[in-house]
Amino acid sequence: MKIVVDGMGGDHAPETAVEGAVLAAREYGISIILTGVEPRLKEELNKYPDAKDLPIEIRHAEEVVDMHDSPSKVVRSKRRSSMKIGLDLVKGGEASAFVSAGNTGAVLAYSTFSLRFLKGVDRPAIAIQLPTLKGTSILLDAGANVDCKANQLFQFALMGHVYAKYFLENENPSIGLLSIGEEDSKGNETTKEVFKMLKRTNLNFIGNLEGKEVYRGNADVIVCDGFIGNIALKISESLAEMIGTNLKEMFSSSLAGNLGYFFMKSKFTAFKKKVDYSEKGGAPLLGVNGVCMIAHGSSSGKAIKNAIARAKELIDKKINLHICEDIESHLDDKGSLWQQIVEMVSGQDDEEEKPGEKPNSEESPSQKTDDDEGTVTKK
Amino acid sequence: MKIVVDGMGGDHAPETAVEGAVLAAREYGISIILTGVEPRLKEELNKYPDAKDLPIEIRHAEEVVDMHDSPSKVVRSKRRSSMKIGLDLVKGGEASAFVSAGNTGAVLAYSTFSLRFLKGVDRPAIAIQLPTLKGTSILLDAGANVDCKANQLFQFALMGHVYAKYFLENENPSIGLLSIGEEDSKGNETTKEVFKMLKRTNLNFIGNLEGKEVYRGNADVIVCDGFIGNIALKISESLAEMIGTNLKEMFSSSLAGNLGYFFMKSKFTAFKKKVDYSEKGGAPLLGVNGVCMIAHGSSSGKAIKNAIARAKELIDKKINLHICEDIESHLDDKGSLWQQIVEMVSGQDDEEEKPGEKPNSEESPSQKTDDDEGTVTKK
Repeated sequence: MKIVVDGMGGDHAPETAVEGAVLAAREYGISIILTGVEPRLKEELNKYPDAKDLPIEIRHAEEVVDMHDSPSKVVRSKRRSSMKIGLDLVKGGEASAFVSAGNTGAVLAYSTFSLRFLKGVDRPAIAIQLPTLKGTSILLDAGANVDCKANQLFQFALMGHVYAKYFLENENPSIGLLSIGEEDSKGNETTKEVFKMLKRTNLNFIGNLEGKEVYRGNADVIVCDGFIGNIALKISESLAEMIGTNLKEMFSSSLAGNLGYFFMKSKFTAFKKKVDYSEKGGAPLLGVNGVCMIAHGSSSGKAIKNAIARAKELIDKKINLHICEDIESHLDDKGSLWQQIVEMVSGQDDEEEKPGEKPNSEESPSQKTDDDEGTVTKK
Repeated sequence: MKIVVDGMGGDHAPETAVEGAVLAAREYGISIILTGVEPRLKEELNKYPDAKDLPIEIRHAEEVVDMHDSPSKVVRSKRRSSMKIGLDLVKGGEASAFVSAGNTGAVLAYSTFSLRFLKGVDRPAIAIQLPTLKGTSILLDAGANVDCKANQLFQFALMGHVYAKYFLENENPSIGLLSIGEEDSKGNETTKEVFKMLKRTNLNFIGNLEGKEVYRGNADVIVCDGFIGNIALKISESLAEMIGTNLKEMFSSSLAGNLGYFFMKSKFTAFKKKVDYSEKGGAPLLGVNGVCMIAHGSSSGKAIKNAIARAKELIDKKINLHICEDIESHLDDKGSLWQQIVEMVSGQDDEEEKPGEKPNSEESPSQKTDDDEGTVTKK
């Protein structure tokens, strides 16, 4: 199993990308392919005395995607970018996962074109981990898609269910629909529709989830469209930043503050670690036919290392096979939903690809997974 | 000038509503009409020895709106509620403003039916104050309307502009459109449309505002639909709650924590005061033809007092007259926008009500304000 790391992706690339690759190879023995401008990557790698003994190879890509490049343009104009070449390695089966801290929109666009979607998935979703009072919740979509239809949010719920089940090891994760009131009737037009769809499944659907419940950890999986998810996530970062700045001012502005900080320092460090994004190591783009991890633009080397480790875990746990099985089984239970989705998925042979009998069966009749690769191929 | 307080509205009504009325009458000499079940209100009032000397009167209303009542049903089924009777006092000119900590949806529904909207306003918006690193920003809509059209968000921007101008005393407030990226092209279908509309005005429109910018205070006015605004607000409360709980645990779990808290206590109290909603005293429902303040359901007596004081300030500053003038003047500048709005507003005589020459002129040709009342009447 090899994992591709976008050597040119991120605010501090290639330094942090190479550092992350070195750390992952050194600490976990993961084989890495770094894509990007070869001389630059070599120069960075040479900073690590043990680099030549690590399972890291470089694949040259002459083009670099900028953080401000337009995703739709980049797909056409930069066909030799570190992202495109990296994702093609996953598509071709040479690598099992792709990790990038680069332009999220570009990763999304390239992934859509290169890897395509899993059967039954109409749009992919970014699934982030949120620290809560009870532990960890998964929120999706955190920004891949705006203007989602009910069917798409329904698919996000299924994918979130599988992700929480295998990744958080929660056998029956609770699923909440992010909305503006607890009552069934609350929400906008789209959430009201998806509410009815989720009610008809055997998922542990707990109904609408108000914003005030999010950090209480009352839902293991929080479903919303990417416009709202992105704003919810970024506004949280913004508030945390404000509170952090205020706390810092309190501590530094007086002797009492300095003393207070002296006594509290270790506790603050522990809390910071709990909520630090770099400990989480990025978020998977669920729904594409391959494992794709999106790391924060300002990722440190450690964050990239953790994203690589997370990618390996998703491959080992065969996340995409389970998503396919789960979508099929839920749709099988509810013929009409199945039909709805079928209509949206581009012309597959429905007769041949009838869904399996029950959720999470070991073998789905319609598809198999190459264990090492995380991509699902049709029979 | 009299202000109506919904005596039965809020989680802790009538206790807190009566306490707020007493405090506002005592401290600011504001004349209050308390609406609600008379014996209950009298009983509460009698707890204050000086109540009989304060300018507080009671208006009996036998029906009470419950926090879980459906707003659409309540408008028809509870025509003798403390809310309906209170808003009718404003409509009839006997009072100048209405304050309630009760069921927000019900206040919104009753206001829509009783007070109706200001000319040029298609939907009202709840305008909340957010504490930021730079001071205070206004976010609207915080939950009055889901599924907003671009024209409605455009109107929210105009109302937010006026509110920030007169309430925050900021002559040229910056206006940001809450979205998922800074670039002009980012957003969902609705925000992209309103972006173009705002670009054409002479407002200080700074473009899209990402969630991460919100608490940095980079926009004085933040425009979004009520679904997103409500989630943004509630998720902020949720995160603050989680951080607060974690801090409390840190402080109480060890001797070092106790010592740290001892040194930091006064600073924490100051910070809490800065972000405490009860200091803010509720949020105005902008766009209805009358001053209507919505206070938090769990408002304390002090929070109600502050909401009453805020209502008085809005009346004194003639907020609704200014909103009317501003909407007319902006629409005048841009004929096509004016036309768009005209089509949405129910059959007024457009010829007679041509907009004024420039923003904020002292006298609008089409309407005048009864100084004491905050409602705007047509000539």
